[in-house]
Amino acid sequence: MRLTKLLTVASFAFCLASLCQCRYTPDWASLDSRPLPAWYDQSKIGIFIHWGVFSVPSYHSEWFWWYWQGTDKQKDVVNFMKQNYPPGFTYADFAPKFKATFFNPDQWAELFDSAGAKYVVFTSKHHEGYCNWDTAYSFNWNSKQVGPNRDLVADLAAAIRKRPGLRFGLYHSLYEWFNPLYQNDQRSQFKTRDFVLSKTMPELYELVNRFKPDVVWSDGDWDAPAEYWNSTGFLAWLYNDSPVNDSVVTNDRWGKGVMCNHGGYYTCQDRYNPGILQPHKWENCMTLDKLSWGYRRDARLADYLTPQELLSTLATTISCGGNLLVNVGPTADGTIDPVMEERLRQLGSWLRTNGDAVYNSTPWTRQNDTATSGVWYTQRAGSVYAFLLTWPANDRLLLGSVAMATNVTLLGHPKRPAFSATPKGLSVALPSLDGTGLRWAWVLRLDGVKPPKTAERPRIFEPMPNREFDRL
Amino acid sequence: MRLTKLLTVASFAFCLASLCQCRYTPDWASLDSRPLPAWYDQSKIGIFIHWGVFSVPSYHSEWFWWYWQGTDKQKDVVNFMKQNYPPGFTYADFAPKFKATFFNPDQWAELFDSAGAKYVVFTSKHHEGYCNWDTAYSFNWNSKQVGPNRDLVADLAAAIRKRPGLRFGLYHSLYEWFNPLYQNDQRSQFKTRDFVLSKTMPELYELVNRFKPDVVWSDGDWDAPAEYWNSTGFLAWLYNDSPVNDSVVTNDRWGKGVMCNHGGYYTCQDRYNPGILQPHKWENCMTLDKLSWGYRRDARLADYLTPQELLSTLATTISCGGNLLVNVGPTADGTIDPVMEERLRQLGSWLRTNGDAVYNSTPWTRQNDTATSGVWYTQRAGSVYAFLLTWPANDRLLLGSVAMATNVTLLGHPKRPAFSATPKGLSVALPSLDGTGLRWAWVLRLDGVKPPKTAERPRIFEPMPNREFDRL
Amino acid sequence: MRLTKLLTVASFAFCLASLCQCRYTPDWASLDSRPLPAWYDQSKIGIFIHWGVFSVPSYHSEWFWWYWQGTDKQKDVVNFMKQNYPPGFTYADFAPKFKATFFNPDQWAELFDSAGAKYVVFTSKHHEGYCNWDTAYSFNWNSKQVGPNRDLVADLAAAIRKRPGLRFGLYHSLYEWFNPLYQNDQRSQFKTRDFVLSKTMPELYELVNRFKPDVVWSDGDWDAPAEYWNSTGFLAWLYNDSPVNDSVVTNDRWGKGVMCNHGGYYTCQDRYNPGILQPHKWENCMTLDKLSWGYRRDARLADYLTPQELLSTLATTISCGGNLLVNVGPTADGTIDPVMEERLRQLGSWLRTNGDAVYNSTPWTRQNDTATSGVWYTQRAGSVYAFLLTWPANDRLLLGSVAMATNVTLLGHPKRPAFSATPKGLSVALPSLDGTGLRWAWVLRLDGVKPPKTAERPRIFEPMPNREFDRL
Amino acid sequence: MRLTKLLTVASFAFCLASLCQCRYTPDWASLDSRPLPAWYDQSKIGIFIHWGVFSVPSYHSEWFWWYWQGTDKQKDVVNFMKQNYPPGFTYADFAPKFKATFFNPDQWAELFDSAGAKYVVFTSKHHEGYCNWDTAYSFNWNSKQVGPNRDLVADLAAAIRKRPGLRFGLYHSLYEWFNPLYQNDQRSQFKTRDFVLSKTMPELYELVNRFKPDVVWSDGDWDAPAEYWNSTGFLAWLYNDSPVNDSVVTNDRWGKGVMCNHGGYYTCQDRYNPGILQPHKWENCMTLDKLSWGYRRDARLADYLTPQELLSTLATTISCGGNLLVNVGPTADGTIDPVMEERLRQLGSWLRTNGDAVYNSTPWTRQNDTATSGVWYTQRAGSVYAFLLTWPANDRLLLGSVAMATNVTLLGHPKRPAFSATPKGLSVALPSLDGTGLRWAWVLRLDGVKPPKTAERPRIFEPMPNREFDRL
Repeated sequence: MRLTKLLTVASFAFCLASLCQCRYTPDWASLDSRPLPAWYDQSKIGIFIHWGVFSVPSYHSEWFWWYWQGTDKQKDVVNFMKQNYPPGFTYADFAPKFKATFFNPDQWAELFDSAGAKYVVFTSKHHEGYCNWDTAYSFNWNSKQVGPNRDLVADLAAAIRKRPGLRFGLYHSLYEWFNPLYQNDQRSQFKTRDFVLSKTMPELYELVNRFKPDVVWSDGDWDAPAEYWNSTGFLAWLYNDSPVNDSVVTNDRWGKGVMCNHGGYYTCQDRYNPGILQPHKWENCMTLDKLSWGYRRDARLADYLTPQELLSTLATTISCGGNLLVNVGPTADGTIDPVMEERLRQLGSWLRTNGDAVYNSTPWTRQNDTATSGVWYTQRAGSVYAFLLTWPANDRLLLGSVAMATNVTLLGHPKRPAFSATPKGLSVALPSLDGTGLRWAWVLRLDGVKPPKTAERPRIFEPMPNREFDRL
Repeated sequence: MRLTKLLTVASFAFCLASLCQCRYTPDWASLDSRPLPAWYDQSKIGIFIHWGVFSVPSYHSEWFWWYWQGTDKQKDVVNFMKQNYPPGFTYADFAPKFKATFFNPDQWAELFDSAGAKYVVFTSKHHEGYCNWDTAYSFNWNSKQVGPNRDLVADLAAAIRKRPGLRFGLYHSLYEWFNPLYQNDQRSQFKTRDFVLSKTMPELYELVNRFKPDVVWSDGDWDAPAEYWNSTGFLAWLYNDSPVNDSVVTNDRWGKGVMCNHGGYYTCQDRYNPGILQPHKWENCMTLDKLSWGYRRDARLADYLTPQELLSTLATTISCGGNLLVNVGPTADGTIDPVMEERLRQLGSWLRTNGDAVYNSTPWTRQNDTATSGVWYTQRAGSVYAFLLTWPANDRLLLGSVAMATNVTLLGHPKRPAFSATPKGLSVALPSLDGTGLRWAWVLRLDGVKPPKTAERPRIFEPMPNREFDRL
Repeated sequence: MRLTKLLTVASFAFCLASLCQCRYTPDWASLDSRPLPAWYDQSKIGIFIHWGVFSVPSYHSEWFWWYWQGTDKQKDVVNFMKQNYPPGFTYADFAPKFKATFFNPDQWAELFDSAGAKYVVFTSKHHEGYCNWDTAYSFNWNSKQVGPNRDLVADLAAAIRKRPGLRFGLYHSLYEWFNPLYQNDQRSQFKTRDFVLSKTMPELYELVNRFKPDVVWSDGDWDAPAEYWNSTGFLAWLYNDSPVNDSVVTNDRWGKGVMCNHGGYYTCQDRYNPGILQPHKWENCMTLDKLSWGYRRDARLADYLTPQELLSTLATTISCGGNLLVNVGPTADGTIDPVMEERLRQLGSWLRTNGDAVYNSTPWTRQNDTATSGVWYTQRAGSVYAFLLTWPANDRLLLGSVAMATNVTLLGHPKRPAFSATPKGLSVALPSLDGTGLRWAWVLRLDGVKPPKTAERPRIFEPMPNREFDRL
Repeated sequence: MRLTKLLTVASFAFCLASLCQCRYTPDWASLDSRPLPAWYDQSKIGIFIHWGVFSVPSYHSEWFWWYWQGTDKQKDVVNFMKQNYPPGFTYADFAPKFKATFFNPDQWAELFDSAGAKYVVFTSKHHEGYCNWDTAYSFNWNSKQVGPNRDLVADLAAAIRKRPGLRFGLYHSLYEWFNPLYQNDQRSQFKTRDFVLSKTMPELYELVNRFKPDVVWSDGDWDAPAEYWNSTGFLAWLYNDSPVNDSVVTNDRWGKGVMCNHGGYYTCQDRYNPGILQPHKWENCMTLDKLSWGYRRDARLADYLTPQELLSTLATTISCGGNLLVNVGPTADGTIDPVMEERLRQLGSWLRTNGDAVYNSTPWTRQNDTATSGVWYTQRAGSVYAFLLTWPANDRLLLGSVAMATNVTLLGHPKRPAFSATPKGLSVALPSLDGTGLRWAWVLRLDGVKPPKTAERPRIFEPMPNREFDRL
């Protein structure tokens, strides 16, 4: 986080240098100098929602259309269409079946709040181009005019904002696989920009002006350079003149080569979870359904993360400076499957006990323990927090990265663990969990921590591979 | 027609004056100077086709959407939706039901050819904005991407062009009732032009370049001035540089106040049939279903024109210098109801006998007879043709507008009528029709006609009111 | 007709013989002895209506299901399903799409009345087994419980009965192609009778008791003997104890080998039109669409009978003692296509002029003329009527079957034809039709007719083949 | 169980008395004398599946049709139809939407097996009358002919039978709410029996003959006496002559007044769980979704039983001599929601540790403990099993119903609990659960148990009310 402070200072200096105008110019040097609004890093946990016409076939993944008719066809998807639809059925023919019959945004908001999330990122438009709001730029291909007959973004935004603990953000795909305007530009190798000028930029401005999102989560940028997308122009406006110029955060998907290099926080890749401290604020966006962001009607229990897996991902992510963006895919009916609701409520109940170790925390000097595998650290307000992802055998824990502490607490447990310094680190005798209901992952608060004298890097390194669950 | 020749000369002069560049400039003075390509006036009869998503509800008329949800709601339409669809059903939800299952463009072309039509005008896009071709400018609201999964314009154009006797034209609505881009422009009182620049003009150029129509039948212009629509700019391109610059004809619906004043031929209003000779080439576009241009599933026999009514409209129209554009509304299945097919084939069979009086004809000095009601004239190649819309009592006909003739023939009849000059005009003794199969309307060819000495206008004037059949 | 009288007498005698009980016994000898209620022969013209779930695919014919999945598959039908429906789509899946949205039974009744029909026969149930009424014996496979949500038989019966000139009858298929109960019985070679006992008989009684039809038009009998169907038992009840025992007429499709041999009037085969006088009252059931009884969405004009063909069929039918049952196939929407409406209204307008030759007429001693082809006879109230199916050349007609008459009238014409006896027959000089509007077929009334002395059979014999229009 | 043995003996005696014919007669005295096949009591846990057309609206409950249109309308259901369907939509119109797209019976079978169930009871037909098999008695209202186009019973039976641990049973509703045949019988106060004779009995025989179910789970009997249903006649056949006469078990829903009095095992009422030992073998059929047996699309997490609640229900049920029939409601797509899958797999994983206390067990002399609430007993092979539904405070447990034991084991735990006799009963010091993964409920095996001297009934009585979760 020191880095962030440094950047803040740098940015301030830059503003001074540009005669106190404090306006960002449409180039990465200037845009990258903007400090990330503090709320974002403090929030740690957000909810990602993938909802759209793909929720109607609700098969394979939200990339259904592409895998059916794009250049990268998948047999299961092609076969699914053959088995269940007449020849000549089109993707747009699905849209009237997107009814959102049971969509109750207040219920969603209550759930996300209970899950302990602090922000929500909703797909205003995915690569299919279907807009979940009443837009001027996507005639009859939006949720007001075909399907739900409802401005889904507006309704969700209102519900989310009724809850003081939640901020509202919007995902937006720059490209649209099958929009002929985009395809034409693509054929021109992005020399023409009809798609950007008449479609994707106008709607992005419209989104920000109407819904004032605190997150603009850009995507679908990779095939074309930022110059094509007008990314820096948009961001300069977003930072200088938009109604959310102070509070908004954005990500790094703004053009070929931009991801992981420029923009707001970095996402780098889906399910990014590097396992080591990152110099730039980042976000691990991941899904409860390991195989898809959109709802799959045929998903089975084993496809969903367990609570342990979810909390393990949380701990490793925030220890290394990331935020966690947990995705749910609602059904075409507008419901969130009970198994996803369960995971979110499990997360929330865990956070009600252990939230001190999460919200407003920062990475510690060590991310994971040198002696015991599966122990990850954060710090907050002078305390160090150790996340235990597995319960140690015989209730005995050795923390190699901690030489001594003045006080050790097991969050949510009435009994204080006994502890003592040993040559190998802090030895902790954990109390029995019987009857406490603590489970899945456990957090120790360590006050007055003294780090070991050796400044070496942890011996134990746990690589966190990007878990790509593709079936291919 | 003399007027037209005069205009041709004037136009030629204009071209010379402009240093033989012969390029039209984007203003009415220049555009109006373009001579109408000769094929159009010679053709006399065209087929109009109204087909689109409105063919799915197929109720009330092709203005269904507007009467359901526009500012001019009609009770029957609103009630139809309540009775037959769930709340929240949208207009775009109809599109997947537009399947064109039985659409056989070759069958259509054969029918139009047999009907004696010389050109076909097809709704590429009606006011609903749905494009019947695979366009770049109406993503997922076109016949390739939702509904038929087929480029209807392309398929029909190909079939029409296989027939040497037929030309292919396109209807195109400038406005779209519910397109938010248009509505925004409208709210700005047409100061903004987003809709024109990103939607209606690009698609119009695309249409002309791709389909090379011989007719561009513009519509939906009335709310905004031609300046908003870029009409003169488009027409200058159409006349100068488009792939159909020599052959194309267009109409007069290019902006508020333009209709009946500028453009190509005049349409003035739907079912325009003034009953007196017009100084400018015009077209009477009318429908076989008196109540609708689009197919109505609940239309009854009495709603359709009889063959007599159709031929009466033809005779009065061409006598006064007009062309007749006969509309059919196909079903969502892509069929043309047999009763419409019957009217067209009746027209065609009549024309096979009487076509000499129609094709390539011009108005005569008199349009309708002074002595006998229901007699209308054309001329061609030195002969005068008298159309009898009712068979005279006792087979005796008096033509007040003809003093004498050298020869009188009843088209399609083996027997020559006897005739003689009388003080009141030419008296003709018609032969019996028994066994001839002649019916509905009859045509006399009069050779060597001498008009009556009096130059007075016909005493009998038959006003042809614009038959508006609205049920309101 | 003398035969009929004879039978009446015979039947009366039989009743006496059976001790004045006058009850029919369930055997053909007794049942066949019942005189046909007089109204039927007097009526001459009825309307047949084929409406059901087959009106949804509305393709090929009302035998769609059978041609799709029966033992006699037709390529076009199988292919239609492949092209337009997903695999696994079932016939019963069509039923909810049978909506009858515009079904207006009063409109139908007005049309049938205007057509000059005197009775209406409606498919209560076709071979698909779907019942068009709210029956107790076809749970969720009837028009009240799936599709229209309406008792179609009840609604139509009420509308028909509002018109004094019309009687209401019901078609009923004994068998059901795919009813497993029927199929089981069939496999037992009709030794088991579960289908008859629990389905087809109960519903037939229900139909008669509830709707009191004046015609019971049985069909679908051919695979099983009358004993299987309980035909004689049902008919005995129908004639003795049913609420319509006095007025009801029935046909001859009551079991293998029964058709054309037993029952009420004979139908013998579809479109039966023998061309020679029949000893037993019969009916020619035929369709306006030459290829189908049910509506076909893709039917074209040429598939429909012309008015001439229709009237020609009428004349040949009634001359030989038959009734004409003209079939229309309504759409799934509940409309009758305008082209069928047109044919019916053309028939009606013709009958308003020529009805004297039709209603209450009986065959004459000669059916068709010996000298002139296309002339057919009836008689009524002492007059002989000659139907001219083509207008004679030069307006000159020779009637070889008439030696002399006292008076000759052309129905609907103000001028009396001149006539004279010649050695070859009666010579008639017909007046010109100009201005009379008479068309399609013409009728001469001949009073005081003397037949030629020679009693020979007509020299000219015109066989009337059963016009089977199958495309196979 | 001693009672059962007694009955077996009695039955045997009865057989002898009836001259060794050993045939049951169609009366309750004889039928009730049949010993329940042993496999049933040994199995303890079955899976109940509610699947049908009600899975399409999938709202409120499987009684949707009744609550929409029956005599007991529910506002939410009526309103749901108004909001989401056009007027005139019928229940049978839902059937084509029952597609079972993802139905994979092998997956289901694997899941039920993993859950530790020993038998499966599938709704062959619920009160809606829709048959989930290819029946001869429900034409076009069965899963082969409308909707899935598949014999669901056959497919599931085959998959279940591939697994040696699973038996296959069928639920069958005697009555059908809206079958007019039933309604007619009802109006006759069940004097007529058309429905029974032509529908419900034939299909029940067909079911047994074709699918040879080990359970016939009858339902929908309550409005009419057993005489109406032919229950005793059917059962006599089932026990004497059916293909499953040896193995089949049945329940007690065979006519008004029969439930809880006659038949096979008793169900008494839905979710029956009396809390005290029952003299007759019984079954607690209950649902994972507390509010419905059929799937509800809008069910939320809180509507589902927790694993604790499920195991608590299991323990109380089997302690008192019942079997547990756990219901799942699959979706119209043919999937089992992951949250239900999770509960079943949780049950299965618990049983893999604790199954010794369940399968083949019998009730002990005491059902629940006199000293500690939430402790329930079974016995098997000389051991007594105590189920702990809550973990005791301080890991200290007092068993008032056990004076002493020779050995105490905590199933699934490597450490033996210490124990000692006290005046109040057996005191057990439980080991810590840390790291064992044991949860939700725990089982102690007690060998060599001595009961307390006092023979009094347990002081603590825990009534187990029938948990009716109705929202009314």
